[in-house]
Amino acid sequence: MTTSFPAPGDKTSLEEGLVFTPKFDRDGLITVVTLGAEHGEVLMVAHMNAQSLARTLETGEAWYWSRSRQALWRKGETSGQLQRVVELRTDCDQDALVMRVEVGGDGGCCHTGRHSCFYRVVQSEDGGPARLVMAE
Amino acid sequence: MTTSFPAPGDKTSLEEGLVFTPKFDRDGLITVVTLGAEHGEVLMVAHMNAQSLARTLETGEAWYWSRSRQALWRKGETSGQLQRVVELRTDCDQDALVMRVEVGGDGGCCHTGRHSCFYRVVQSEDGGPARLVMAE
Repeated sequence: MTTSFPAPGDKTSLEEGLVFTPKFDRDGLITVVTLGAEHGEVLMVAHMNAQSLARTLETGEAWYWSRSRQALWRKGETSGQLQRVVELRTDCDQDALVMRVEVGGDGGCCHTGRHSCFYRVVQSEDGGPARLVMAE
Repeated sequence: MTTSFPAPGDKTSLEEGLVFTPKFDRDGLITVVTLGAEHGEVLMVAHMNAQSLARTLETGEAWYWSRSRQALWRKGETSGQLQRVVELRTDCDQDALVMRVEVGGDGGCCHTGRHSCFYRVVQSEDGGPARLVMAE
């Protein structure tokens, strides 16, 4: 398994090229938006380092980097909510990923037990403080 | 206009609370995933600081923070692709946002002229280097 990727090139290569040169931030991480394969809903936003991205590509299963635990994180290893990668996309400057996944177990994603991590809507009213509303 | 938000509380408040306490990173930024309002497709991934988030809430229009220009960025000011916020959600630990927007102008988003910034699919074959395929 390789854990290295080519270094990002110039603007034209980044935007129009067909070589995958993911741009990791100064912590060595790239942002990943994970979508449900069937409905396209946003399940979670997380991070990968080069090793977890390489392992994801190699295995077809989602591996993230846990910033809190500072460790490779095979999503669903404990919960059974494993994520099988259906499609992976990158953006114009190759510093973000969008990944469509089929989820194992009960199909959920969030450690709080919800289907998606985005279960609250931010509501604001004319200058007042913003509040959250449960939106499941 | 207020540009400050309450400080994040404990784990239970973050996850189950109804007070919006966005968690900014050490650069003062929070990741925002922007979706098309009608179809829910991912248009872009960008960042907001407290000021741009407050302005977004106040005006109902998407304001980001441009990391490359280190400046407030009213999306679409030049291109006409202004983003009207239809819904804003936050995740379990309140360190990411998902925003559904109606886009002005030609309805696009990416500075390369594409509808979405995620116009390329990452493809990998058994251990070989990953390649990109245009997928518009």
